[in-house]
Order: sequence, then structure tokens, then C-alpha cells
Amino acid sequence: MTDRLPGLFAMDPVYLPKLFPEPNLRRLRAVLDIDPAHVARGFADERAASALADAEVIITGWGAPPIDASVLDKAGRLRAVLHAAGSVQWIDRAVYERGIAVSSAADANAVPVAEYTLGAILLAGKNLFGLRDRFRSERGFVIGQDHPDSGNYGRTVGLIGASRIGRRVIELLRPFDFEVLLSDPYVDADEADRLGVGLAGLDELFARADIVSVHAPDLRETRHLVNAERLAAMKDGAVLINTARGALVDTDALVAALATGRISAIVDVTDPEPLPSASPLFDLPNLFLTPHVAGSQGNELARMGRCIVEEAERLADGQPLVHAIDPGLLWRQA
Amino acid sequence: MTDRLPGLFAMDPVYLPKLFPEPNLRRLRAVLDIDPAHVARGFADERAASALADAEVIITGWGAPPIDASVLDKAGRLRAVLHAAGSVQWIDRAVYERGIAVSSAADANAVPVAEYTLGAILLAGKNLFGLRDRFRSERGFVIGQDHPDSGNYGRTVGLIGASRIGRRVIELLRPFDFEVLLSDPYVDADEADRLGVGLAGLDELFARADIVSVHAPDLRETRHLVNAERLAAMKDGAVLINTARGALVDTDALVAALATGRISAIVDVTDPEPLPSASPLFDLPNLFLTPHVAGSQGNELARMGRCIVEEAERLADGQPLVHAIDPGLLWRQA
Repeated sequence: MTDRLPGLFAMDPVYLPKLFPEPNLRRLRAVLDIDPAHVARGFADERAASALADAEVIITGWGAPPIDASVLDKAGRLRAVLHAAGSVQWIDRAVYERGIAVSSAADANAVPVAEYTLGAILLAGKNLFGLRDRFRSERGFVIGQDHPDSGNYGRTVGLIGASRIGRRVIELLRPFDFEVLLSDPYVDADEADRLGVGLAGLDELFARADIVSVHAPDLRETRHLVNAERLAAMKDGAVLINTARGALVDTDALVAALATGRISAIVDVTDPEPLPSASPLFDLPNLFLTPHVAGSQGNELARMGRCIVEEAERLADGQPLVHAIDPGLLWRQA
Repeated sequence: MTDRLPGLFAMDPVYLPKLFPEPNLRRLRAVLDIDPAHVARGFADERAASALADAEVIITGWGAPPIDASVLDKAGRLRAVLHAAGSVQWIDRAVYERGIAVSSAADANAVPVAEYTLGAILLAGKNLFGLRDRFRSERGFVIGQDHPDSGNYGRTVGLIGASRIGRRVIELLRPFDFEVLLSDPYVDADEADRLGVGLAGLDELFARADIVSVHAPDLRETRHLVNAERLAAMKDGAVLINTARGALVDTDALVAALATGRISAIVDVTDPEPLPSASPLFDLPNLFLTPHVAGSQGNELARMGRCIVEEAERLADGQPLVHAIDPGLLWRQA
């Protein structure tokens, strides 16, 4: 056995056993000299400071303390920060500037969001949320053999953003009879062909898609990307899905559009968040609203943990990291 | 162009344009001499009797008149009945006995049922129906980073029946991190290996699966296959999905099991059907109940039509039929 790299956990300790249950923890400790009984919530105390001074690897998760220049000054041997969660926007630029590798489990965290989206597309395409509510409120309307506004054969799905999640959704949609449109300023016609999707501008996408799903990052440029005009351009009976960030959608415009009953929506993220209890979003019958849970939950934390275990194994083995963050692309990521 | 085979439509005429929109109809008429303005609802009237006497192919759909020995006596040139819907249990044995081929679009009709099932599995695995209801009723409970009873990483899905639909569900589950158990008396270990599933007896399946989905035919032997004992054997938080037939589930036992709140269910078919308005199924918060719509609806009828168009093209071209019914297996099909 080779020497194990000195490591340190830094996160809210509640997540450690969820991210690194056996066998994740056993595999991690096979390559890192790391103490699962010591999970730093800050680096000021003596024990954390001592571990930080020795650490070649910090394993972070939700609730990790900031890692900035002042921390790095006390982490002279640090080679990598491996983040067992999605976004690394909280990690200071100084980390990259000092040549310390940063990896994240964003690919693993994309999986449940894409799965939520696929499930929502399949059920919404058959208008199941509406049929369920109608069946319940009318207590047994006539069951016919046909609901003409229903069905997943040949529908057009419009995806906004070929992000990690957007690309995973594209993959997951392959076994189905959908036409997939993509709007993404960084994808050209060749790449769209390779992905098997059609390219469309945002306005065209909203006008043509039966189901629009948002997978863009939350940037100044994407704020209120889903606005009153685009909602008005959607087809009768169309469905908006937002699992990305609340600020991408103009909430007032969405409430107004849903109130007409002309479109429906499946929404996991809101603006603001948490949502005030007086929000009309809680009352709209044609809105399937969930409390920001599309990302990793419950057993899905262990998938993020495994992703980071594999990254630690690569680091220990001298292999290139697979999930390393390119700081040059950070500005357009979530 | 070769001679077109004389054909006759027999079904409820309302479905014809949904099953055979352009280009389905154009393709069908390229190989069949068939009049879309004449859709027989019976064979007694003069026009239908005349067309029946000439027909080599009858294209049937929902609402088709019975086809039995008395009809066959007047259909001396009949070679095939192509049914643009699922079950052919309504077609008399006499048809097979006279060597007339029967095909159905059951494979095409399996697609939307499998899609409903996949969507239900993905959303139920993340407990989204429960979280949605709780979010709405509490109007903004604390949004945490973790719901421990949630997640689609490593869950066990138990499928009852390797029917057309069951097999399609198995295929659709491949991209996900599920363990799939199958209970089917006609599948042996070799075939289970090929399918990538584990075999389990029914009792074992109910005890081990996080999500149980029923895809068995409605037979005397399968009546109340889901009974009080098996529901009681399900894990806390487990989910039952029934898109097959209501009689497979003991309704009273399901109501009692759901009333405890220990398990939840997603149900598209009930016993009886239609459901009386006083049924407690309408009121259970942990039941997502839809009105028998998992099968082909709306645009999905055109997928069944295309399936039958392709079968008619094979017939006209002297190719073997792909969807021919084996009458020896009918007794164990839906």
C-alpha cells in the first residue's frame, strides 16, 4: 500500500455519513489519511489548524467554511479541494491562483435534477397532473378512451441551456419519441447534430415547444429569461419546468400566466426562496410546486460522495482528475 | 405499383383520424385499397357486407364490431385482421382457426404505459408527491438540504410481470441507478440475466422493493395478487404503482394500507371501473390517482396507427408480420 495523502473533512458534519457511508468511507480512507470523527466547520481552532497545515486534500460538502487566501496561508501542503456537492462558486479565486486543483461532484448532482426533469416531462406530456386533479375534484368524470390534449408521441421539448444537467436531460430523452430543441449561445450546429437536437433561439423555442425546461445558470444575463412575453408566446396547454434557479423566471409574470389557465408549470425553485407563505404560487391548481429538492436528496448524497471518492483515488494514483473545475469557465456556470 | 390489397376499416369512426392522420393514412392507402370515408361499426348493412366480402384485410380499432364465425362466413377472402389498439381478446378464436393472421399494436400501446411508469418511479423515488403536498399545505416548511426518505440512488424497483410493458419498463430503467427485481413465473434465471434483473418470488419482491409496479395480465390466477398480506410486507415509505388492471389489487386492502400512511401509491386503474364517486380512493392524500389514461391517449393513438401501417406494408410486401398474435399464448396475456 502506498502512503495515504493527509486529508481533512470540512463541512456541516450532519452530511458526512450521508455522503460517505460504507463502502464510500472505506474506499476514501484507503487513499487518504483522514479522520471521519473530525469534521471542521472552521479552520480557527487548534485541531483544525493543525490538520489544515498537514492536509494535501480537503474534502468539502454543504456547510463548508470559506476557503480563501487567509486559509491557504495556513495550508502550505494543500494540493486539492474535492467538493462533495455541486456549486463551487463559494471557493475563492485564490485557490485556483495558487495552483490548487478543485473538483466538484456537480456531475453526480446533475443526475437527480435530470431525473426529476425527465419524470416531469413524461407525466406532464400525458397531462397527468391536470387529469389527476380533475378526476379527484369531479370524483369520477367519464373515462373515455381519449384525451386529445394528451400524449408523448412527437411532442417538442425545448431545453434552455446545455449545462451538465441540460446535457444529461438530452441523453435521458433519447429513448422517447420527442423532438428536442435546444437554446444555448455556446452550442453550434455541429455540436447540436452530435447531441441529436435542433437549435433554436429563445423566442422560437418558447413558441414551438410543448414543454420548456430551464437548465441555464443564474447570471445577470439570464435573470428573468422566462418573462411575460415568452410565457405569452407559449402554446395553449404548454408546460414550463424550472429546476434551475428561481431568478431565471419572472415570478409575477409566471403567476399571471398560470392564473389564465392557458399553460401549466412544474417548479422546484422560486424567487424569492424560501417562498413567503402568502405567495400565490401555493394556490395555483396548474402548478406542481416542490421545495427545491430536485438536486441530491437522501440516498443521492452517497452518489456525490462516490464521485469524490473516485476523484481522491485518481489524485492518490497520480491520474488526471475527471471533475476538475476550469476557473476560466466558472463565470458561466451555476 | 403493385396491386393494393382490398381493405376495410371497422371501429368507432371517431378514432380513425387520430390513428391514421397524414402521413399514416397516405402510407396505408399506398398498400391497401381502403376507403377512410367508410368505417364499419357492424357488418350487417349492405355496404359493409359488400366490403367484407371483398376484404383481404380488416383494420380495426377501439369500438370495432365483434369478429366471429358468422362474420368470417361472409369474409371469404380475409387474410388478416390488423388491430390498431392493444388487446385482441375480443377477437374470436374462429379467426385463428381459419388461418387468418391477427396482429395488434400492443407493442406501441405498451410504450405510453411504460413511460407513465418510469415517470411515476422517478418522481415517487424522490418522494415528490408527498413533498409537494406538504409544501402546499404547510405553505413553506423549512427547506433543508436533505430529505432522508428521498432519492433514486440505489433504490430497488420490483416489477411484477415481464409482459410487453414490463419488459419496456426494464429497458427504460437501464440508465438509472436502480436495482430491478422481477417476479414472473415464465422467466428463468438465464433470461433474467439477459434482462439485467434479479428474480424474486412475489412475497420476496414485496418485502425487498422500495417501489413495486404491477405489469401482470388480468387472469383468474392474478386476481388480488396485491392483497393485504403483501401490502403489509412492504417497507415503510414504499410505493405501489398499478397501471395494469384494477382487479390485480384488492381495493379494500389498498385503501386500508394507504389509510395508515405507511405506504403510498400511484394508481391508474381501479376495481371497479368506473370508480363510484363515494370511493375513498378519491380522498387519500398519499394516492396519486389517474383515470385509466396510462395507455395511448391523444397523439399516442398515431403511434398505434403507424405500427399497423407498417404491419400492412409487410403484408402487402409478402414479409412476415412482426406483431402477429400467437393464439397459444393468448390465455396469459392482457
